[in-house]
Amino acid sequence: MSSTRPKVYNFGAGPSALPLSVLEKVQREFLNYENTGMSVMEISHRSKTFENLLNKTKHDFKTLLQVPDNYEILFMQGGGCTQFSAVIYNLLAAKRQQIPEEEEFNPPLDYFVTGSWSAKAADEAKRLYNNVNIVIDVKKSKGSFGSIPPKEEWKLSGSKAAFVYYCDNETINGVEFPFIPDIDPSVPLVCDMSSNILSRKFDVSKFGVIYAGAQKNIGPAGVTVVIVRNDLLTNPKSVNDKDNGVTVIPTMLSYKVFVDNNSLYNTPPMFSIYVSGLVFEWSLQLGGVEAIEEINKEKSKKIYDLIDKSKIYRSFVDKPVRSRMNAPFRIVPEELEKEFLAGAEELRMVQLKGHRSVGGIRISMYNSVTSEAIDFLINYMIEFEKKHAI
Amino acid sequence: MSSTRPKVYNFGAGPSALPLSVLEKVQREFLNYENTGMSVMEISHRSKTFENLLNKTKHDFKTLLQVPDNYEILFMQGGGCTQFSAVIYNLLAAKRQQIPEEEEFNPPLDYFVTGSWSAKAADEAKRLYNNVNIVIDVKKSKGSFGSIPPKEEWKLSGSKAAFVYYCDNETINGVEFPFIPDIDPSVPLVCDMSSNILSRKFDVSKFGVIYAGAQKNIGPAGVTVVIVRNDLLTNPKSVNDKDNGVTVIPTMLSYKVFVDNNSLYNTPPMFSIYVSGLVFEWSLQLGGVEAIEEINKEKSKKIYDLIDKSKIYRSFVDKPVRSRMNAPFRIVPEELEKEFLAGAEELRMVQLKGHRSVGGIRISMYNSVTSEAIDFLINYMIEFEKKHAI
Repeated sequence: MSSTRPKVYNFGAGPSALPLSVLEKVQREFLNYENTGMSVMEISHRSKTFENLLNKTKHDFKTLLQVPDNYEILFMQGGGCTQFSAVIYNLLAAKRQQIPEEEEFNPPLDYFVTGSWSAKAADEAKRLYNNVNIVIDVKKSKGSFGSIPPKEEWKLSGSKAAFVYYCDNETINGVEFPFIPDIDPSVPLVCDMSSNILSRKFDVSKFGVIYAGAQKNIGPAGVTVVIVRNDLLTNPKSVNDKDNGVTVIPTMLSYKVFVDNNSLYNTPPMFSIYVSGLVFEWSLQLGGVEAIEEINKEKSKKIYDLIDKSKIYRSFVDKPVRSRMNAPFRIVPEELEKEFLAGAEELRMVQLKGHRSVGGIRISMYNSVTSEAIDFLINYMIEFEKKHAI
Repeated sequence: MSSTRPKVYNFGAGPSALPLSVLEKVQREFLNYENTGMSVMEISHRSKTFENLLNKTKHDFKTLLQVPDNYEILFMQGGGCTQFSAVIYNLLAAKRQQIPEEEEFNPPLDYFVTGSWSAKAADEAKRLYNNVNIVIDVKKSKGSFGSIPPKEEWKLSGSKAAFVYYCDNETINGVEFPFIPDIDPSVPLVCDMSSNILSRKFDVSKFGVIYAGAQKNIGPAGVTVVIVRNDLLTNPKSVNDKDNGVTVIPTMLSYKVFVDNNSLYNTPPMFSIYVSGLVFEWSLQLGGVEAIEEINKEKSKKIYDLIDKSKIYRSFVDKPVRSRMNAPFRIVPEELEKEFLAGAEELRMVQLKGHRSVGGIRISMYNSVTSEAIDFLINYMIEFEKKHAI
C-alpha cells in the first residue's frame, strides 16, 4: 500500500482538500480502528468505542470555538440545505412558546440575502412559510452580489422576528461578513457558516443557531455540525396538539431530538464524524482557530494583493467584504480564462474553475490549503500575467 | 501500512461487517482516487469523476435488483428515520393529485406494525398526520412481536389509502416477511428494507417506494437508497399554493428534487456512496442477489436448526417469519447469557448482544458475514450447550 500520491494542489470550493496527515492516519487505521479488528464503519454506534469518539469530537470542537456551556453541539445529516428548513421549524416552535396561545401566530423571518446561498435559504423560507422579510437583497438593490450595504439600508423586523438569518461566507460570490450583524438581542441570530467555520475566531454567544456542512473546513461531506443555544430547544409537536401547523416538525429535523439523544437518535454518519474529529485534532495541533486565522489572513492577503496590482485579474467584490476562504475573479479579456485553467491543470493545480453561475476563476483557500499551495499558485498567476499583459 | 488485522467475527446488527476485500480496496486508493492525486472525499461532486462513480453505482444497484425502468434510484441522507417522514409528505402529495381540489383531503395511511421499527414509523405518522390506520399491531394483538397474522386479520383501508407501509425485516425482533403483502394494486406499497435489501430476490414492480439505510447490506452509515416509482413524483408545493398543509415538504425530503438533480441537489455523502458502489460490485461478483440468497438461506438454516434442536437456546419467533438476517434468541436459564457473550468475545466473536429492548443474544447474518463465521459460531454454540445442558 502506498502512502504517496501524485502531488496536486487542490483549490476546490467544496468538497475540498483535507489535511494530508489526517488522510494518512485514516488510511493507516482503516481496517482496524483502535485494535478492535474492525473498521470504524463496522462498529456499533452504541458501543463505548464510538461513544468515546463522538464525545471527544464534540469536546475538541467546543474547545476550538470556545462554545459556551449553554450551547449544544449536534451532528446532523443533509447538509446546509436541510438546515434551511430545520431552522424554520425549530425556531418558529421556539418563538411559539413566547406568544400567548390565543394570539395569532405569524412572526416574520428576517433574511439577509448577500449571495447565492442565502438567496436559496430565503427561497426555501418563502416556500415553507408566509411571512418572510428580506432585510437586504444585494443583487436586487445593487445589480449583483459583491457588497454588504451599511446598517442604514437594512430592513429588520425588530423583536417581532422569529429569527434573523445570514450566511457568513458566500462561497460562490466570495462575500464574507467582516462583522456579526447588530440586531435586536432578543431575536435569535441564525448563521450558515458552512464555508468559513473554524477559519477565524468569533463570539458564539452572539448566536442562536450556527450550522456548517462539513465539506470545507470540517471533514467529508455527509455530516452537518449544528450549534444551538439551549433555550431554543422545544419538543417536536404533534398534529393533535392544539398548536399545529408550521411547528409540527419531522423528527429528524428536530434539534431537541438530537440533543436528547447525543446525536444518536438513529445511526449517525459515523465515518464523516470520525474524520471530522481528526480534523479538529489537527486544527488544535496547529494552534487552534487563532493560529489558523493568522495563516488564512496571510494566504488571502497575498492573493488579493496580487489581484489588485494586476492588469488582467479583476475582483468583483468590495474590499471590506472579500472572503478569506473563496476568491472569485475574472481575467480580462475573459477568453484567457480557459487558458489559465488549462495551464493550471498542467501544473496540477485543480478545481479552480469559478461556479457556473458567475463564471471566471475561484481560488478556495480553506484551512487545509497550505501556504505552499498559495505561493505556487501566485507564481503561476504572475507568470501568466507576464505572458499576457500588454 | 498494514492490510492485516486481528481476526474478528463481527455479528453486529448495524453498522455491521463490510466485505474485507472492499475495505482493502478503499484503503489502497484512499489517498489517490483514480490517479487524481486526491481522495474521493476531496473531489467535487460536480466533477466528471464523481458523476461517473455515481452513475455506475446506480447502474449496478439497478442490475442487482432488476429495477424496472419506471423506477428512480435516489441517494438521500438521514437514514430510515428520515424516510419515516419523507414517505408521508411525498405520497400524500402524490395522492392529492388524484383527488378533486374541492373534495376534503384526508386519506388514511395504512401501517403494518410487526416490530420495533415499523412501530416507530407508525408513531411518526401519527405525530405528523391525523388519519393513520393500523393494519395489524402484533404486539397489541399477541402480546409480543414474533409473528405475522394471516390476511384475514388485517384491517386495510382499500383504495382510499395514500399508501400501505411495512418493514420487511425487523432487525430487533428477528421477524421477516416471507411474502409481499397482497393489497389493493392501486395503492402504493411502501417498504423499509433497511436490513434485508440485497439479501434475496424480490419483485420491485410490486412497490411504490422502497428505502434502505446503508449500514447493513449496502455500505457505511450516512446514505439511504430510495427506489421510487416515477408516477409518484410531484413537485414540492409552496405554502402559497391553494393546496397547502401536509403536502408542503422540506426540499431535502422531496423525492422529485432528488430525481431532477440525480441526487446532486446539494453535496451528497460521497464517501458512503463510493463504498456502497464497491459493495454493489462485490455483490455482483458473488453472482448477484440470487447467489447471495442461497448463501443466506444456508447460513440462517444452520443457525435455526441448531436453536430448534437445542435444550438451552430458544427462539421466540414463529418459524415461517424468522429472519434470515437477524436471529435473536434467549438462553435458558437467562443467567447463562452473560457467560455466553463473554466466552464469544474471548474467541473474538463480537456484537452478539441482543437489543436492549428484547435482551438475550442476536446473531446478525448480513451478506458480508461469511459462512466461515457462522460455522465458527455454531461450533461455539454447540460446545457451550454441552458444557451447560443438564
